[in-house]
Amino acid sequence: MRIGLDAMGGDFAPRETVRGARMGLRFLGATDEVVLYGVRDVVEAQCQEIGLADPRVRIEHCPEVIEMGESPVEALRQKRRASIVQLAVDAARDVLDAVISAGNTGAFAAACQLKIGAVAGISRPGIAVVMPTFHGPVVICDVGANVTPKPRQLYEYARACVCYARLILRVTEPRVGVISIGEEAAKGNLLVREAGALIRRDSSLRFVGNVEGRDIFGGQCDIAVCDGFVGNVILKLTEGLAEGLFKTIVAEIKEESLELVPRFQPIVDRIWKRHDFAEYGGAPLLGIRKVAIICHGRSDQRAIGNAIRVAVEQVNHKFIAVVAEEFNRRPEYVS
Amino acid sequence: MRIGLDAMGGDFAPRETVRGARMGLRFLGATDEVVLYGVRDVVEAQCQEIGLADPRVRIEHCPEVIEMGESPVEALRQKRRASIVQLAVDAARDVLDAVISAGNTGAFAAACQLKIGAVAGISRPGIAVVMPTFHGPVVICDVGANVTPKPRQLYEYARACVCYARLILRVTEPRVGVISIGEEAAKGNLLVREAGALIRRDSSLRFVGNVEGRDIFGGQCDIAVCDGFVGNVILKLTEGLAEGLFKTIVAEIKEESLELVPRFQPIVDRIWKRHDFAEYGGAPLLGIRKVAIICHGRSDQRAIGNAIRVAVEQVNHKFIAVVAEEFNRRPEYVS
Repeated sequence: MRIGLDAMGGDFAPRETVRGARMGLRFLGATDEVVLYGVRDVVEAQCQEIGLADPRVRIEHCPEVIEMGESPVEALRQKRRASIVQLAVDAARDVLDAVISAGNTGAFAAACQLKIGAVAGISRPGIAVVMPTFHGPVVICDVGANVTPKPRQLYEYARACVCYARLILRVTEPRVGVISIGEEAAKGNLLVREAGALIRRDSSLRFVGNVEGRDIFGGQCDIAVCDGFVGNVILKLTEGLAEGLFKTIVAEIKEESLELVPRFQPIVDRIWKRHDFAEYGGAPLLGIRKVAIICHGRSDQRAIGNAIRVAVEQVNHKFIAVVAEEFNRRPEYVS
Repeated sequence: MRIGLDAMGGDFAPRETVRGARMGLRFLGATDEVVLYGVRDVVEAQCQEIGLADPRVRIEHCPEVIEMGESPVEALRQKRRASIVQLAVDAARDVLDAVISAGNTGAFAAACQLKIGAVAGISRPGIAVVMPTFHGPVVICDVGANVTPKPRQLYEYARACVCYARLILRVTEPRVGVISIGEEAAKGNLLVREAGALIRRDSSLRFVGNVEGRDIFGGQCDIAVCDGFVGNVILKLTEGLAEGLFKTIVAEIKEESLELVPRFQPIVDRIWKRHDFAEYGGAPLLGIRKVAIICHGRSDQRAIGNAIRVAVEQVNHKFIAVVAEEFNRRPEYVS
């Protein structure tokens, strides 16, 4: 197994990506490899700094770097020798089994789509995140790959997410919902209504209908599909609200009694850890013909290490083959 | 001043609405009135049950009731003598200064729009909610009146919300953001980009650009505008996530040490109260020619009482006149 990691991607690259690669080594078999894509000198210097000299780590030199703020379209056109592009090219050539980047999300998603391509039957891949909730994990898709999807694409997300939830999250019969603003079928918007109709008609899916924002945390569904704009707002809002609430709680505890603070700290740490994106190891780009993991821009080494774990897990479970089988069995979407 | 209250609207009506009216009396002057719109016998029975016999409370008989699940369009067409419709009709005739309902939101918003009408210069009213955050209140508009607004309408929301934040929340120079999925102007979708351009061109507004979900809780803006679909998802998600997090925290505290629970309870209660919709007294329907307050379907008497407080406050501050003045002064939107 060969995992390609964008050593130049993310707010703390290459420092944290190279350290993350080292952390990820323990999830690899003896003959597996992590290939660091990036500017050789820069990556090598980092490896030397931490004394990383494992035969399972290799550097693939990529002279160009796509920065976080660049326009994806422009960047892909102009920087063909950037790590993000080379990762996708090598995955397409079957040199890599999985690709990971914490860099420019738009550029990485576009590179995967253009170079690696989608599984037959899938028109547009979606980014899925696994959200921890009191009632168990919920997969939300799409959180930003496509802000104006077609109903058919939400239906595709549902099918790909079901494969993911079954195989990786071990949810036997995942319940699928469409994120909307009312439980009645008449509410929502055109996209929601048409996507709901497509999913409902597919008897292999356990459709629970429209789910509202609050239902995501209420245990009503295991998978929630939506357009990439709504999904991204949900993702960022959840981060912000959780942070804000914890800040409020800590401030209130301090006001109540300073002596309570150390008693509450381990509780905060535990909950925080469970809700921490770094623990989840990135978001799978579902629908691509290779395992592709998008990491948070703020990923530290632990997040990168966990992304490697998640990638290894998907390759081991033959996740791509399962998705391909699902879309091959019923290649036509009902409409 | 005359406040019209939909006695039949909400999950716990008429019990809680009538009790809420009693709670709201203390915000009224000696010659002010709360008029209970609903089925006379039913409302009267509730008044008798709690011994409510104040000269400032009157019943306006409305023989029909629009239920929570009904289609707004159908309901308005068929039930012209329902409390929701009569409230709007009487406000349009200047018999009422403010209208309040915890009933069918869609029907109430549509009735207000059709019967009372919008302030000159406003094409579509929006529902605004005031969200409590660690850094102070943030007004989010629209949270469900219009799921497919035009850019011009987001710009109108921004202007109306500025009036609201100044007058009611006492924020001198409110910062306005457009909810999007990236800070750069190029990101987001067409609506976000075009609305942003309109708001930016208006030098009377303090525009901070696009704000992401997390920024709402990060103190980046005082007002955030968006389409009604996104806004409603944000509203419901916030409710669900806050509830879910508190559940998790309480469970973790119990696990840590049962003895900690009573010490932590007052803190939870305090934060919960501050985040409780019932404390906020409903969401103003901004842009209507009368004060109109939409309450949560689950409103209890406290929520209804607070809605009366908020309505009185808006009438006292001549909120509608201020909005009309703002849109009269610059009736044309720039485009």
